[in-house]
Amino acid sequence: SIPVVESRGGAETGQFFSDGRRKVDYVLVFHKRRPQTARHHPDPQDRLSTISNGNFPPPPPPVPPAPPAPNAGGGAGGGGGGGGGRGAGRVSPGGGDAVCVELGAAGGAEESSSLEVEMIREEFEAHLVEAGLEIERDGDKEVKGHGPGFTRLHAPWHVLSREAEFLKIKVPTKKSYDLKEESGLSASLSVLWARMNEPFQPKVPLQQRTRTKLLSHTFTRDKLHLYDIKSKDTFFDNAMRGRIVYEILRRTACSRTCHTMGITTLIAKGVYEAAFPLHDGDYKITGHMEERNDRQLLHEEWARYSAFYKYQPIDLIRKYFGEKIGLYFAWLGVYTQLLIPASVVGIIVFGYGVATMDTNVPSLEMCDGRQNFTMCPLCDGACAFWHLSTACGTARASHLFDNPATVFFAIFMSLWVAMFLEQWKRRQITLNHSWNLTGMEEDEEHPRPKYENFLLEKRQRKLMMKKKKKKKTEVGSVGVSYTTMGNDKLTWRDRLPGYVINVSSILFMYIWLLAILDKIIYSISIDIVRYLCHEVYVSIYSLSIPSLSLIYNLSLSMLLSSSLESLYYHLSLSLSLSLSPEIPKTESSFEERLILKAFLLKFMNAYAPIFYVAFFKGRFAGRPGDYVYVFHNYRMEECAPGGCLIELCIQLSIIMLGKQLIQNNIFEIGIPRLKKLIRTMKDKGAGEVAKEDNKSRPPQRWNIDHALAPFEGLTPEYMEMIIQFGFVSLFVASFPLAPLFALLNNVIEIRLDAKKFVTELRRPVAVRAKDIGIWYNILSGMGKFSVIINAFVISFTSDFIPRLVYLYMYSPTGTMHGFIDHTLSYFNVSNFRQGTTPSSGQGNISICRYKDYREPPWSIDAYQFSKQYWCVLAARLAFVILFQNLVMFLSLLVAWIIPDVPKPIVEQLKREKTLLVDVFLREEKEK
Amino acid sequence: SIPVVESRGGAETGQFFSDGRRKVDYVLVFHKRRPQTARHHPDPQDRLSTISNGNFPPPPPPVPPAPPAPNAGGGAGGGGGGGGGRGAGRVSPGGGDAVCVELGAAGGAEESSSLEVEMIREEFEAHLVEAGLEIERDGDKEVKGHGPGFTRLHAPWHVLSREAEFLKIKVPTKKSYDLKEESGLSASLSVLWARMNEPFQPKVPLQQRTRTKLLSHTFTRDKLHLYDIKSKDTFFDNAMRGRIVYEILRRTACSRTCHTMGITTLIAKGVYEAAFPLHDGDYKITGHMEERNDRQLLHEEWARYSAFYKYQPIDLIRKYFGEKIGLYFAWLGVYTQLLIPASVVGIIVFGYGVATMDTNVPSLEMCDGRQNFTMCPLCDGACAFWHLSTACGTARASHLFDNPATVFFAIFMSLWVAMFLEQWKRRQITLNHSWNLTGMEEDEEHPRPKYENFLLEKRQRKLMMKKKKKKKTEVGSVGVSYTTMGNDKLTWRDRLPGYVINVSSILFMYIWLLAILDKIIYSISIDIVRYLCHEVYVSIYSLSIPSLSLIYNLSLSMLLSSSLESLYYHLSLSLSLSLSPEIPKTESSFEERLILKAFLLKFMNAYAPIFYVAFFKGRFAGRPGDYVYVFHNYRMEECAPGGCLIELCIQLSIIMLGKQLIQNNIFEIGIPRLKKLIRTMKDKGAGEVAKEDNKSRPPQRWNIDHALAPFEGLTPEYMEMIIQFGFVSLFVASFPLAPLFALLNNVIEIRLDAKKFVTELRRPVAVRAKDIGIWYNILSGMGKFSVIINAFVISFTSDFIPRLVYLYMYSPTGTMHGFIDHTLSYFNVSNFRQGTTPSSGQGNISICRYKDYREPPWSIDAYQFSKQYWCVLAARLAFVILFQNLVMFLSLLVAWIIPDVPKPIVEQLKREKTLLVDVFLREEKEK
Repeated sequence: SIPVVESRGGAETGQFFSDGRRKVDYVLVFHKRRPQTARHHPDPQDRLSTISNGNFPPPPPPVPPAPPAPNAGGGAGGGGGGGGGRGAGRVSPGGGDAVCVELGAAGGAEESSSLEVEMIREEFEAHLVEAGLEIERDGDKEVKGHGPGFTRLHAPWHVLSREAEFLKIKVPTKKSYDLKEESGLSASLSVLWARMNEPFQPKVPLQQRTRTKLLSHTFTRDKLHLYDIKSKDTFFDNAMRGRIVYEILRRTACSRTCHTMGITTLIAKGVYEAAFPLHDGDYKITGHMEERNDRQLLHEEWARYSAFYKYQPIDLIRKYFGEKIGLYFAWLGVYTQLLIPASVVGIIVFGYGVATMDTNVPSLEMCDGRQNFTMCPLCDGACAFWHLSTACGTARASHLFDNPATVFFAIFMSLWVAMFLEQWKRRQITLNHSWNLTGMEEDEEHPRPKYENFLLEKRQRKLMMKKKKKKKTEVGSVGVSYTTMGNDKLTWRDRLPGYVINVSSILFMYIWLLAILDKIIYSISIDIVRYLCHEVYVSIYSLSIPSLSLIYNLSLSMLLSSSLESLYYHLSLSLSLSLSPEIPKTESSFEERLILKAFLLKFMNAYAPIFYVAFFKGRFAGRPGDYVYVFHNYRMEECAPGGCLIELCIQLSIIMLGKQLIQNNIFEIGIPRLKKLIRTMKDKGAGEVAKEDNKSRPPQRWNIDHALAPFEGLTPEYMEMIIQFGFVSLFVASFPLAPLFALLNNVIEIRLDAKKFVTELRRPVAVRAKDIGIWYNILSGMGKFSVIINAFVISFTSDFIPRLVYLYMYSPTGTMHGFIDHTLSYFNVSNFRQGTTPSSGQGNISICRYKDYREPPWSIDAYQFSKQYWCVLAARLAFVILFQNLVMFLSLLVAWIIPDVPKPIVEQLKREKTLLVDVFLREEKEK
Repeated sequence: SIPVVESRGGAETGQFFSDGRRKVDYVLVFHKRRPQTARHHPDPQDRLSTISNGNFPPPPPPVPPAPPAPNAGGGAGGGGGGGGGRGAGRVSPGGGDAVCVELGAAGGAEESSSLEVEMIREEFEAHLVEAGLEIERDGDKEVKGHGPGFTRLHAPWHVLSREAEFLKIKVPTKKSYDLKEESGLSASLSVLWARMNEPFQPKVPLQQRTRTKLLSHTFTRDKLHLYDIKSKDTFFDNAMRGRIVYEILRRTACSRTCHTMGITTLIAKGVYEAAFPLHDGDYKITGHMEERNDRQLLHEEWARYSAFYKYQPIDLIRKYFGEKIGLYFAWLGVYTQLLIPASVVGIIVFGYGVATMDTNVPSLEMCDGRQNFTMCPLCDGACAFWHLSTACGTARASHLFDNPATVFFAIFMSLWVAMFLEQWKRRQITLNHSWNLTGMEEDEEHPRPKYENFLLEKRQRKLMMKKKKKKKTEVGSVGVSYTTMGNDKLTWRDRLPGYVINVSSILFMYIWLLAILDKIIYSISIDIVRYLCHEVYVSIYSLSIPSLSLIYNLSLSMLLSSSLESLYYHLSLSLSLSLSPEIPKTESSFEERLILKAFLLKFMNAYAPIFYVAFFKGRFAGRPGDYVYVFHNYRMEECAPGGCLIELCIQLSIIMLGKQLIQNNIFEIGIPRLKKLIRTMKDKGAGEVAKEDNKSRPPQRWNIDHALAPFEGLTPEYMEMIIQFGFVSLFVASFPLAPLFALLNNVIEIRLDAKKFVTELRRPVAVRAKDIGIWYNILSGMGKFSVIINAFVISFTSDFIPRLVYLYMYSPTGTMHGFIDHTLSYFNVSNFRQGTTPSSGQGNISICRYKDYREPPWSIDAYQFSKQYWCVLAARLAFVILFQNLVMFLSLLVAWIIPDVPKPIVEQLKREKTLLVDVFLREEKEK
């Protein structure tokens, strides 16, 4: 029944069926495991013997034209009307299932399963033909040995138009209208702007601005005369065709041999190896410049490092890759563009720090050798007394980041985040409008293969239970119970263990991670201090650069975290996939959960060390003579004398520079290359024969595309950017250069991703999407979180608040002079406990100083927290409340002031509605 | 051209045209000012003489069937295509405008304007006939003297179906499907639940639960066979018919005589007096119980106090009043229902306070006469020393509200708010689904009359400018410039002054209000203290009830604020209306602005005194011997010795009980009654003649409905509830009984509103709405605000934090014993300044105590804030941060966990989609 057409390799471009006219819209790849399974109708006896329990229905001679059931819906969607139970009813109870289950647990009986696979494939393709697709399949001649076989699909016009109507695709009509022209000053300004933008615009036909816009309307076959149809072959572009075919593939059921639906399930079961639409051609330009196809255009104008300064040709990207990927790049573009003002302000703030470094009283006082503060040793026993002026370098460096401008910058960046989110919303709506997605309903979802399997197993368990109960049931009643159970769905009892496992595992990993990280960092640092204290410690401080030990420490922790990162990601993936405890129903809800879980782990992994430095390091270290010890002999770490902020800065800059700029890009370039290499190596052995055969004729498009890596979703791309966004927004108060580094990284990142999509991946199915989904929520959650984090960084990590308090409450002169003295408490050397006295260099020191607000030794409550301590603490907390609420209010205000829908779009939408009504009214009249 | 049909008073029900068959769908009321203007074709000479400048076009003999232009859009929508300029182009420049402008500034030339009015009316009604409506108008016979005239409109089937198609109204199809039935335990539970709910369900046919649901689909005339049409007269119900006619009335332009569009503008111009659809009949049941109409049903089952315990028949309300009013009552219902658990928890919390009152150590210590704390006088000079134990009563009462359970209750209520918002979202979506509003696009907006007028004036100013520039312009060129200026819209320069005036006026009023209120309250209290201090003060305290002075004070301020309230509301209305400085384009944006402004003022007015008591009163009062004075001789107020919390409680309970329960309801019942009385009194004189005439025949439905009060929007209803919601959410930490009082109020409120809508108002047009609009935003903003307010109330107004700090940091025994002693500072009597020593009862007192954390007189920094002060302050601030972020996080979590769309709805939507595709596929096949 399937028209197997032997391809003759005639068409030169390799884009068409063997007749050279019908376009290949989709390719299904299957793997012929053994040459002898290539027969089309295996012996019934043979087949029967391979089925373990139950009988197999005879192949239905003329398959009755079953109406395609676009949503039999895995069971829950089936309903009582009998629609969903259709397939199940026709098959006798045990047989069909057995095949599937066996296939799921494949491995042993390879031969039999390969036979089954063949049968499923045949039924599936027969259904495709029924749905109107045209099929061309490699015959025996092409597929020799273990090489891949290709089934090529073509959708003729009547299928395309039918599906387009179902999918409610909006297409341009003949009716066009003029866009409103600006007049006067604004017009000349916009012309000037356009001219200035000229060199940044990619040279792509779609990108050119037009004065008129075609009115769009949902495609209906009744009103073909309305649409601007030049040729029925090209009216739907290649991406759209691929999408339509994919839609058919997705909803085509395979009811006889196997209770599944859709190509995804079949791929998961191993019936097919892959399924993808074809690229438009080679990305290297071969012919005339004028005749470039879209892929070549994209490669020329977008996917090159040398085009880094240009805008992205978003419309073309969308046309080629579909809305979902288009939205990713548009989002990346908006983010990168908005990073420009942020980094400019960041540079100015940094510049302010540099400029005021020499007039900053506290750091000058610290560097002043005359004010000879003798500091207490930083550890018990091993460390010696030291002079504060040796920490002059870090103090000066610290001022670069810890100055009043930083507070302003933190507020600015919080508003920037709000602005970014609003800007993106506007951009998204503008794109939705120009891509004709307004009013689009969500695409229907299909259940995940895993979910279906689980349901199947549950159903079988129930059946078994029933069978056990009443041994002698007739087949009929079982059949009835079977169909009624088509309504089955998972109850909370099925899901609960999954949730529990999930939540507890994530919690466990969080705690574990924290403990481990803490301990590791700590033990590293303790080693360093132990061994360096005697000889090198003082000499390092005298270098007056941020201490080497720090850098050493931090690069270690960076290495650690980045190596842990991939481990965690895979762990979370396997958690979600293999244990699959929650069993969400649809692909998208599964994806959302996976993303959320992966994000939480990645977030923890990326930020844990930074949080540690910002909020915990040195907070609970105790005081000289009474240092806090945990686990009996491990001391709590302390920050360098310059303050914890400078450590935070160094850590952040290492991460931003090292990890973001270098490592990530290497990983993204290097690992795919490596994977590709491995894949070609693997294929070499198997495909050797095929290749030799292919030498006679040029490799077809599908051969070439099959050699590319499959598209695996946008999650890793988004994830990387979101983590970076976190660095930009969360700790911006301590590192104003973060936006700049992010900007540099992103400029490369865009082109890198572009290259990957254009040259290294199979063409993804053009998926429709109105928004970026859960990522927006994550972004906005991060924005909210960043407010409180920045508030805490400014008030607790930096010295901003103590300085203010000193200035307005304690300073005798009303200036900052004496601040350093004020922050140092006194310690009487005689109060050292047994064994904690420094072993060297005591000399005639009786009083040493340490950084804390505590009562002096001569007070009644010696070494208790002083009134200043509580006062500064209150000021810090008050600042947090003030900052948080102010910034939250301002962010809300920004979000409220900037309208979600840009004004021109609102007006255009209104215009279009009016015009549409006009058009239809006129039609009405003509009737 | 208009078919004036003399009504013969034949139809008994008064719902139909004189032929007794065609239903009256809409009534336009006009006022005949003089009997002689009743002629239908005034002499052209006469007419011309009344027009001030410009000529009048001859009445177009056969009006060309101009296509109805549903959105000529005030000018901006007109565009270059010539669509919008159509009307303007046909009229010669000055004439048409002059009429309108003159009308706008009417008053002097009454006779001429009444002629114009007649002409406009005639043109308008001619256009209505063109649009397909059928018209019946009172002839001369009916309208004698000054009585109102009625134009009755009927929409025949072809108009209804055409408009329904345009409006994309979803209607039920013949295809029905079964709702999923629950099975097993959940089924029997739901049956049990339904049975328990039985007495609470109103006895209304629509409310009955059905097992099947009809599939709905957008109405199209092509597919009439799909829909369940029993009779073309009843397929669209009365509300729908009214809406459709209103839609036509709204978009019918009046291009010849006056450049306006829509009935609203005409009513604003005084061309018509009113326009409304008719009620379904009398609300009193006259015939059989079985034949009750919807209005009677509503009156029986909903709009009665005796039905207070029943659910509301939301579907019927929606059917009768439309979606917008249905949503209001649904919202009110959800709010009231959710208040039940809140008030139960509130009662429990209050009960906890009552139960632990006798075991509460601090209040016991305070009442203990043995611990004889001699307190410093509370004012300079006049007041005497007093004993703390005299404040025992307030201390004990204070514990009722100030105990650990309150903290729990504050967190609970914050989550309750989040839950309420989520619950409402779900309910809204459920209603949207069952009312077939899913996928509905927003209705098109029409420009406000005010906006059009402004544009007109601007245009004329421009014209004048142009005319001045080149004196000798031909009429042609002016015509051209006129049409091109049809594209005019308001630039920011036109709007800026409006914004500035608005913002500054609101700011000014805020500041003024604060200053005034503060001063008034203060001066009242100072008087009280002055005169009572000598004799009554101590005796009041000895009454051991919350001091009478307080109550006196507060009731005064309540009276003040409630009398100010209406003043402010009208002020804000007049601000927005008469100054109309912002000139928003559409009705809905105007309404939103008005609501926001009114809300801000009302909010301030309602909550200012409460905020004052909660956060300012007594905070800056100074200490004995150094009391703070403002304005030279006014002292800052101090709270009663029991703490500010108890004052807050009293204030809140007075407001909730007095204002909410009694006053508001009186206002709502009393004032409408009064208005009605006045209206009937006024109409009596004018309508005397008409009435005598009417005695011969029964008053028609339109006469009766015209006598009712017009529907004036839902804003006051929502506003009242939102302010109440504020009391429930904002200060719940200090008054756990607030939800209970709100609940009691709402139970009455629902029935009161219902009565008003059913019996006292004209039937409103059934407006479609998907949500409650800006009110949701205000609610959610209030919810957010309530978190921070509650945090501050708990930490600063209540004694919760000081007690905790004492317990864990200072208490020598680890119990609360000694807390009172700890909170009182010492004052050396000899430190009283000249003239501030108490005049009486000094005796042998050398040290007195006062409530504050200050250093004792014998310290170095005597009377400075002590370490405890800063410590408690830090703890308070830390609590605010902790509470705010915890609650915000929990609220987010609640909002995230509760899905916006209830699961059954998701499944039903999916089912419906599948079924629809099935239906259409089958149709496809049959072709």
